Amino acid sequence: MIKTPYLLFLGDAPDQLAAKVAQGIKDWRPENAVGQFRMDGCGADVGIQDMTLEEAKAAGAQTLVIGVANRGGVISDAWKEVLLQAIDIGYDLASGLHNLLRDEADLVAAAEAKGAQLHDVRVPSVEYLIANGKKRTGKRCLAVGTDCSVGKMYTGMAMDAEMRKRGMKSTFRPTGQTGILITGEGVPLDAVVADFMAGAVEYLTPDNDEDHWDHIEGQGSLFHVSYSGVTMALVHGGQPDALVLAHEPTRAHMRGLPDYQQPDLVDLRDMALALAKVANPTCQVIGISVNTQHLSDDEFEGYLAKVEEEMGLPTVDPFRQGAGRLVDALAAL
Amino acid sequence: MIKTPYLLFLGDAPDQLAAKVAQGIKDWRPENAVGQFRMDGCGADVGIQDMTLEEAKAAGAQTLVIGVANRGGVISDAWKEVLLQAIDIGYDLASGLHNLLRDEADLVAAAEAKGAQLHDVRVPSVEYLIANGKKRTGKRCLAVGTDCSVGKMYTGMAMDAEMRKRGMKSTFRPTGQTGILITGEGVPLDAVVADFMAGAVEYLTPDNDEDHWDHIEGQGSLFHVSYSGVTMALVHGGQPDALVLAHEPTRAHMRGLPDYQQPDLVDLRDMALALAKVANPTCQVIGISVNTQHLSDDEFEGYLAKVEEEMGLPTVDPFRQGAGRLVDALAAL
Repeated sequence: MIKTPYLLFLGDAPDQLAAKVAQGIKDWRPENAVGQFRMDGCGADVGIQDMTLEEAKAAGAQTLVIGVANRGGVISDAWKEVLLQAIDIGYDLASGLHNLLRDEADLVAAAEAKGAQLHDVRVPSVEYLIANGKKRTGKRCLAVGTDCSVGKMYTGMAMDAEMRKRGMKSTFRPTGQTGILITGEGVPLDAVVADFMAGAVEYLTPDNDEDHWDHIEGQGSLFHVSYSGVTMALVHGGQPDALVLAHEPTRAHMRGLPDYQQPDLVDLRDMALALAKVANPTCQVIGISVNTQHLSDDEFEGYLAKVEEEMGLPTVDPFRQGAGRLVDALAAL
Repeated sequence: MIKTPYLLFLGDAPDQLAAKVAQGIKDWRPENAVGQFRMDGCGADVGIQDMTLEEAKAAGAQTLVIGVANRGGVISDAWKEVLLQAIDIGYDLASGLHNLLRDEADLVAAAEAKGAQLHDVRVPSVEYLIANGKKRTGKRCLAVGTDCSVGKMYTGMAMDAEMRKRGMKSTFRPTGQTGILITGEGVPLDAVVADFMAGAVEYLTPDNDEDHWDHIEGQGSLFHVSYSGVTMALVHGGQPDALVLAHEPTRAHMRGLPDYQQPDLVDLRDMALALAKVANPTCQVIGISVNTQHLSDDEFEGYLAKVEEEMGLPTVDPFRQGAGRLVDALAAL
């Protein structure tokens, strides 16, 4: 578990997109960030107060979170200087970079000297067990997509936020590095060894109050041949009570797979539900989340209405419309 | 790739079952084994010539294969003595043990001094890529089970042996440590990191002649919640042209999961075929392989006939009847 609150390190991010982890923290857990740290030439700004390491420390920050991708996969000397200073004045570090903090000898030495933690959230920090399939208490919701990167994390985050706003018991359960950095804990599922994937999901979503909902972050797609095994582990390890179908309607082909087309929503519904019922016979599909970012203001409502009529399920874009109707559907279960 | 032929190390195996890896090599690749090495008190015998390390070396053996499980997960002093002698006179070592040869400092030092290879086949030795889903040349067959441990490896081995006997082009492609030790190469799929599972299967079964069949060793089951993600990676990374349904009809529940029942063969057929068609739209289910070891001589033929009539597919126990009818079905595709 990563200690909060954070100071968000934006480094020399060339543009806003490079700082999407920091932006996610600011959007979904603003209480986790006391400020942002930008270096000369930084082209990103997540819209919170600029602070020095010392100012943020005085404001209570415990961890410097690298909220930006690094260029060329190298931790530059300029970054290194800041990271070493941060350790020196008492920060932990957290990173989702491909190259690991723990592989940098100077950071490791400094952290050992100061008793600081280095969190590489791409790497599992727990020895997960093989899944036992036992029914757990509490409720679970999982978004499954027609493709990768169609808004599954956003959907879960938005439903969790809406439930908490309503005073319902709810936890977002991250399975990727962005989500883990946002909330401070989770399972980097794509880095878990095959035999332990479903067990890692069981670990992620333990027994809970009967009226508590876990929103498990989805990964991949049952129809994406590169990652479908990871998705399967979520469906079976998560034993969801509710599925949300996630879709992006303007893709020419499956992400990264030019020869593959997205399934239609009926195929996704039938496949995902049949598989989910293996682990939880009472599972239901409760709604559809569409990422309409490439549809105009004139188009998107018509599209959603058409899907809703065809599928007979509440169909929303949670970014444009909020997740209220999806939460209504969960609450009605 | 493990150098053949082998000397099979049976150690102090308490009984025949403990030597199932050695037995598998003797059954399926007898040409890979020049002899067996048994210690005092060994209760196993795979029925080939007993040899000393020196005799087997003189007969051409290149690798000492640990064909037996070790008690308590510890490489005993008695074993260690033999393994060190083997390295000293020029053997490589190969093992599927949970505890690794490479974690034994004395073996590592001896191997380095002699230039010997230590093969721990439970651990991937290749950095696999993320699957690209590209259609590969050649044909592939995959057994998918109603449960774990229902005879999928045996089915693939038997079909491969039958095809080679007929002069057809065929390769068995192991995905578990027993199969890897038997053939000398393969992918230990359950130890691969989640993101690379399907890519590892693509690596395992590359482009080949159009009339060549890969028999990919199945793992887990789409209906076994602990391992279904691994199975999914085989279905999508393997892009099989043909599926064989594998079943064991006397299970009271799914292996290791007392609260889960096996699916029926119709459910397995429909689910596996629908998923396989994502990667290979021309995939067909060509037959059924039943492990009838718990049915009597009076019972098993009646059972197979009943399944064959219900399912409309060639249904055999390849152990009792050979895999000829399954190969006929492949050849007819």
